[in-house]
Amino acid sequence: MTTLADIETPAALIDEARMAANIARMQGHLSSLGVRLRPHVKTSKSIEVARRQQAAGAKGITVSTLKEAEQFFAAGFADILYAVCIAPDKLDRALALLAKGCGLTILTDSVAGARAIVAKGREAKHAFQVMIEIDSDGHRSGVQPEAADLIEIGKVLQAGGQVVKGVLTHAGSSYDLDTPDALQALAEQERALCVRAAERLRAAGIACPEVSVGSTPTAVAARNLSGVTEVRAGVYVFFDLVMSNVGVCSPQDVALSVLTTVIGHQPEKGWVIVDAGWMAMSRDRGTSKQKLDYGYGAVCDAAGRVIEGLWVSGANQEHGIIARRDGKADAGVVERFPIGMKLRILPNHACATGAQYPAYLAVSADGSATEWPRFHGW
Amino acid sequence: MTTLADIETPAALIDEARMAANIARMQGHLSSLGVRLRPHVKTSKSIEVARRQQAAGAKGITVSTLKEAEQFFAAGFADILYAVCIAPDKLDRALALLAKGCGLTILTDSVAGARAIVAKGREAKHAFQVMIEIDSDGHRSGVQPEAADLIEIGKVLQAGGQVVKGVLTHAGSSYDLDTPDALQALAEQERALCVRAAERLRAAGIACPEVSVGSTPTAVAARNLSGVTEVRAGVYVFFDLVMSNVGVCSPQDVALSVLTTVIGHQPEKGWVIVDAGWMAMSRDRGTSKQKLDYGYGAVCDAAGRVIEGLWVSGANQEHGIIARRDGKADAGVVERFPIGMKLRILPNHACATGAQYPAYLAVSADGSATEWPRFHGW
Repeated sequence: MTTLADIETPAALIDEARMAANIARMQGHLSSLGVRLRPHVKTSKSIEVARRQQAAGAKGITVSTLKEAEQFFAAGFADILYAVCIAPDKLDRALALLAKGCGLTILTDSVAGARAIVAKGREAKHAFQVMIEIDSDGHRSGVQPEAADLIEIGKVLQAGGQVVKGVLTHAGSSYDLDTPDALQALAEQERALCVRAAERLRAAGIACPEVSVGSTPTAVAARNLSGVTEVRAGVYVFFDLVMSNVGVCSPQDVALSVLTTVIGHQPEKGWVIVDAGWMAMSRDRGTSKQKLDYGYGAVCDAAGRVIEGLWVSGANQEHGIIARRDGKADAGVVERFPIGMKLRILPNHACATGAQYPAYLAVSADGSATEWPRFHGW
Repeated sequence: MTTLADIETPAALIDEARMAANIARMQGHLSSLGVRLRPHVKTSKSIEVARRQQAAGAKGITVSTLKEAEQFFAAGFADILYAVCIAPDKLDRALALLAKGCGLTILTDSVAGARAIVAKGREAKHAFQVMIEIDSDGHRSGVQPEAADLIEIGKVLQAGGQVVKGVLTHAGSSYDLDTPDALQALAEQERALCVRAAERLRAAGIACPEVSVGSTPTAVAARNLSGVTEVRAGVYVFFDLVMSNVGVCSPQDVALSVLTTVIGHQPEKGWVIVDAGWMAMSRDRGTSKQKLDYGYGAVCDAAGRVIEGLWVSGANQEHGIIARRDGKADAGVVERFPIGMKLRILPNHACATGAQYPAYLAVSADGSATEWPRFHGW
C-alpha cells in the first residue's frame, strides 16, 4: 500500500472524502432545484474524478478543449459539450469524433461562426448540434440576449440544416464577488438573461430546447432555476482558496493539495524553503485581489490541517518560501519545520494547480494513495 | 512539410533563428569572459534545445528536478548539476542515477542537509559530488558567505567522505532590476560574494574547485568574472517579456510564442477573443509590476511582428481577450481580426509558458515546423 510517507514531492493529492462531499453537495443542490448537472471536467481532466461525478447523478460532461472530448469519449463518456466557441479549422477534428459515435455538442456566438459551421456541415453532410453562447455578465464571450445577431445566428444555423440545441451562458464575473446577496443576484441575472435569449429564439421559430447556465459560485448561490435545463460547474469538485474567498466553501472543503518537503531555511527571516514552487502550485495568484491573499497557497500540516498565520509568500520555479503572513520573522523554524518534514499547501486555483501534474494521488480514508492520471495539452 | 497553416492552436512555437542568435550571444559573451556556460534546462525541458546549446559550446547542464536529470541523462547528457537543495528522501533517486553512470552533482545549504548526504553516502558507500549554495542577494536560499555554518557544512561533508565540489549562487533578485548599472552592480555582488565563500572554504582546508554563479540578467550584465569557473543561465535561450523589461533583450529577440486563432469578438468593447487563455500562456503575470505591463502577453501577427498598442488584457482557462492597451474600444475588430485568423502571442515568462505544452513546434527559416517534445512533472 502506497501511503503519504512513500510519495515523492511535490505531488498533487486529492482528499477523496472531501471530494465526495463536494460532489454530493452540488449534485444534491441542483437536483433539488430540478435541473441536471453537467460538470466541467477541465478542472480535473481526470477520468476517475469524472466517473465519481457521473455516479453521483451528473448527466454528461462539459469540456474546454477537443483533446478533453477525445480523452473522455475514449473512456466511455458519450454526452459531451465543448463549451468554447469553435474555431472553424477545428471542425474537422470535431467531425472525426462525431464519426466515432461521440454525442458532441459545439458552440458559437457569431454569424461568421455559424456560417463556418453550416459550410462544414453541408460539405460533410452532417447536422451539428450547436449551442449559442449568450453574454449574461459582460465578462468574456457571447452574444447579447437582446441582440439582432442572436436571431440571425439561429436562422443561419437552422436554414443551413444544423440543429440549434439551445443557449448557454457562463457568469464568470461571479469569481469577483464575495457576498451571498451579490452571488444570488448574479445567479438570477445569469438565469433570466439566458432564459430570455431562449424565448427570443423560440418566438422566432427556432426550437432551442436546452438552457445551460453556470459557474461554481452562481450554481451554489442559485435558489430558482426555472427555465434552465442544466447547470455547468467545474471547480466545485475540488474547491480552492479563491472559492473560499468568494464564500462558497471553506478551506476545510478544499480537496486538492500539494504535498511538499522542507528543503531549507533562512532562520533570521523565519523562512522555510519547500520543494513546491510555482511549477508545483501554478502561477495563479487569484487570491491577490480578494479579501484574504494567500500568496501561493495556504500552509497545512501533512494531514491537511491549516497552520494559521503562515502563507507561501513567494515562489520560484521549484522553491516555495513559507513565512508568517504578518511579515514578522517566525521564530524557531529550523526546529519546528526540520529539513525533510512534509507539509501540504492548499491552492489558490485548483484548475491551474492540477494542470501542473501528470497525475493526482487520491488519498482515501485509510491513508492509502492511488494514482489517477490526468492529461495535458490540446 | 508541416507549416504554420497546418498547426492546431494553441501551440508553442520556437523561432529557430531567434533561438540560435540568443544561444550564440550568451555563449560568445561568457566565452569572452573566460568562463564556462552551464545552461539551465528547466526553461525548455527539451533535448533538442539543449543539444543546440551544447553544440554552441556549453559545458554540462543545470536542472531543477531529478526528472530533468533522468530525462537528459537518458538522452546522452552526462554532466548534470541539480541546482536545488536536495531533500533527504530524494537521495536514493539520485543514487540510482549515479549508479547508471550519470555525473550528477547535488546541492545543500545547511548542516542538517550535509549530514543527511553524509549518512546516505556512507550507507551506500558513495562519495557524492556536492556544491554548497551561497546566498548572494537575500532573495531565496543559500548560506551567508560570512556565516560560520558555511565552514561547518564543508567540514561535515569532507569529514563524512563526500566531495565539496564548489560553491553556487543565483542572484535571482536581478529579475526586479531594469537599469544596466543596477544589473552590473548585482552581477559584481553575485561574483564577489560567491568567490569570497570559496576563499573562506579553501582557507579552512576544503578544496572547493568550482565557483558557479548566474541568472540570465546578471550573466548578460557581467563584465568581470574573475574567480568564477562557470555561469548558469536558463531563460536566455528563449528570452521573454519580463527579460525585455529588465533590459537584457528586446521583444524581437523572444524566440517562444503561442500561436492562437481568433474565435470571437465583443465589437462594442473592441475585444478580440482568441483560443489562447491562461492554460496556453500560463498564469505568469511577471510584467505586472514592471515598467511595461503586457497583461498575459504581447500580440503579434502570424509572422511574429508585434502589433503595437494591443495586449492580452484578460484570460480564462481557454479564452484570451485581446484589447487596446489604452483601454479605448478598438474599432473594426471584426473585420481586421476575422474569426479563424491566426495571431502569435509573446509570453511574459518563457519557463512558465513552455511548461503548459507537451511539445514545441520549432519553426525554421523556410517556414517548416518540427515537433520537439518536452516533458512535464517530477
